[in-house]
Amino acid sequence: MDAIKKQRFGLPNCRLLSGSTLDIEVGYETYGQLNAAGNNAVLVCHYWTGTSHAAGRYAAADPLPGWWDALIGPGKVIDTNHFFVVCSDTLANVQAHDPNVISTGPASIDAATGEPYGSRFPVLTIRDMVHVQRALMDHLGITHVRAVGGPSAGGMQALEWACTYPDFMDKVFGVCTYGRSNAFFTLGVYRWCRAFLQSDPHWHGGDYYSGPGPQQGLRRALGLITLLAQAPARINATARASDSGWDLPDGAPPYTDPDGVFPYEPSFNAFIDERARFADANAFLAIARAATLHNVGWRRRGFAEALSAVRAEVLMIPCEHDLFFPPGDSRDVVDAILQGGGRAELYTISSDWGHFACVFDTDRFAVRLRDFLKPK
Amino acid sequence: MDAIKKQRFGLPNCRLLSGSTLDIEVGYETYGQLNAAGNNAVLVCHYWTGTSHAAGRYAAADPLPGWWDALIGPGKVIDTNHFFVVCSDTLANVQAHDPNVISTGPASIDAATGEPYGSRFPVLTIRDMVHVQRALMDHLGITHVRAVGGPSAGGMQALEWACTYPDFMDKVFGVCTYGRSNAFFTLGVYRWCRAFLQSDPHWHGGDYYSGPGPQQGLRRALGLITLLAQAPARINATARASDSGWDLPDGAPPYTDPDGVFPYEPSFNAFIDERARFADANAFLAIARAATLHNVGWRRRGFAEALSAVRAEVLMIPCEHDLFFPPGDSRDVVDAILQGGGRAELYTISSDWGHFACVFDTDRFAVRLRDFLKPK
Repeated sequence: MDAIKKQRFGLPNCRLLSGSTLDIEVGYETYGQLNAAGNNAVLVCHYWTGTSHAAGRYAAADPLPGWWDALIGPGKVIDTNHFFVVCSDTLANVQAHDPNVISTGPASIDAATGEPYGSRFPVLTIRDMVHVQRALMDHLGITHVRAVGGPSAGGMQALEWACTYPDFMDKVFGVCTYGRSNAFFTLGVYRWCRAFLQSDPHWHGGDYYSGPGPQQGLRRALGLITLLAQAPARINATARASDSGWDLPDGAPPYTDPDGVFPYEPSFNAFIDERARFADANAFLAIARAATLHNVGWRRRGFAEALSAVRAEVLMIPCEHDLFFPPGDSRDVVDAILQGGGRAELYTISSDWGHFACVFDTDRFAVRLRDFLKPK
Repeated sequence: MDAIKKQRFGLPNCRLLSGSTLDIEVGYETYGQLNAAGNNAVLVCHYWTGTSHAAGRYAAADPLPGWWDALIGPGKVIDTNHFFVVCSDTLANVQAHDPNVISTGPASIDAATGEPYGSRFPVLTIRDMVHVQRALMDHLGITHVRAVGGPSAGGMQALEWACTYPDFMDKVFGVCTYGRSNAFFTLGVYRWCRAFLQSDPHWHGGDYYSGPGPQQGLRRALGLITLLAQAPARINATARASDSGWDLPDGAPPYTDPDGVFPYEPSFNAFIDERARFADANAFLAIARAATLHNVGWRRRGFAEALSAVRAEVLMIPCEHDLFFPPGDSRDVVDAILQGGGRAELYTISSDWGHFACVFDTDRFAVRLRDFLKPK
């Protein structure tokens, strides 16, 4: 694949579901070529802490390619020899300080005050993310796509697309995802992350941009979702491969240091450092909250009624041991679509990665997804 | 069963594994009668936040019986018509303020200062808990028991018994447990709980007894372990039975209150209030740390070598969806004992309670445990 270039899309005066209006800019990337008829596009939506860098490299020397590079490219599952793939940064992208991310969010300057929005940034929804993507499609001259899909929060966006613009796509796929929030995420993950951020002495109610920011709270929150995104058995096995106890020399008085470090902690901490490097705490929480508030149909219609509007063919790919979106969540979506007379299939994978399988163990569903995307 | 009475056991000048000495008192309960030969005892060890109140009621009007009452009693699995069952409060019992708990811990008065120990309470280990239980057995005139067992941290104590006093018992059983800590518990559960407590403004480094104490942090920590002790699918299903979205009237401006409460939260919060009612934050953390430090054999011998010393017949009962001690942990114990030439069996149960199955879904293993305890 040629070197990837970030592009910029602006949408001034955009009205959000909350009622606020916002001048919006987001970055996007494309892979492959849009055909003359403009009908070979696939929209890929990214996960919570992800970015629009779904595939390829900006430069040959980049250590890592985009996050779904195993699936997107010439001859790959989402074959850029046939498809024109688009991925855009969400609003309030978590990686706000990544030089390759363009995303209006809490860290952006509010023109009205000359200061970062901080705590004044409006409440976001998955619906708003889809609204901006829809405008981007117009901008690119795309009136119909072959498919919309993504992992985790990306799949939430895809299902929102399917309910809100049911005639816009042929197919929808979601990996380790759901069409609404669930109680474990809301009562648990969201509230724990929020507690870590709010109890950081540098939080200042979200208006921390003139100070060091709540880096400890953010690292704790990222650590939490990193551990919960794997099956505990996998974490334990990885650690046991290095050692099973405290790293203390035999004969030393043990148990003296509650901050003592297990031998497997430095590599874990290095991974969290990498995730935290460009991340913004407000944005992290804004996306979490968007996931928590999510409910296709937005309570104006019920969940099942909303999904009965879906016209696209839907493939849901849950993973066993996924704590965020257990397989029953995907089954719930498929059942609602089938009961509404639509077309939906469940393809449950098994991986000790758990939730992370959606990006780290793509081999488990690559063949099934390739078949699904093939024109019939 | 007759009304249960708490009894008191004192062990002055007890030397802990850390090297500290401590004047110790713990409460204990017994069910059934010790026979003349003194050889019909079963020692039951309690879980992290549990107490010695394993069965029966103090008074007929008690709303709930002890935590393993489904298993312990006349004609039940641990049949008090045949067995004399003993359960004692651990050192640093979490329910320090429960009037029915007797346990020397961080909230106890240090005679040397006239103040609660607080942060000066010595580091505890599972080994120390077993040491005190061993002294209690001597006190009761019991030189050999039929079985030692328990759920979760209680099972950790049982396995420690099996390695340290291999000739003291015929049988050992552990439900949802392990013979050492694992990385998910240590990197995750322990560190998250500790962060919640330490970031509470009333924590004061653990010396909070003259103030209100870190109640918010403690409730967060108890909420975390309560959610992680169930399979997320169970939490989600329970919540969905009440509602699937924010409890906001249709037409009201949604998304305005980040503290907005889901309809299923009040009942969850009431459960946490109950768990927190008599709990002490320092003790909660002390037991978590003991679990984290645990490793039968204590690094002087390796894990497998320590378990090769076991002479008792061992039954390990893990539960699928247990995040704290996944089934592989129990398999690890059984494998090590078998490889050491001992006798051990694995009986894996399936329950959407996950870890909590060890106390809330005892029907899943009751028959197997009854068979195991039957004299052959």
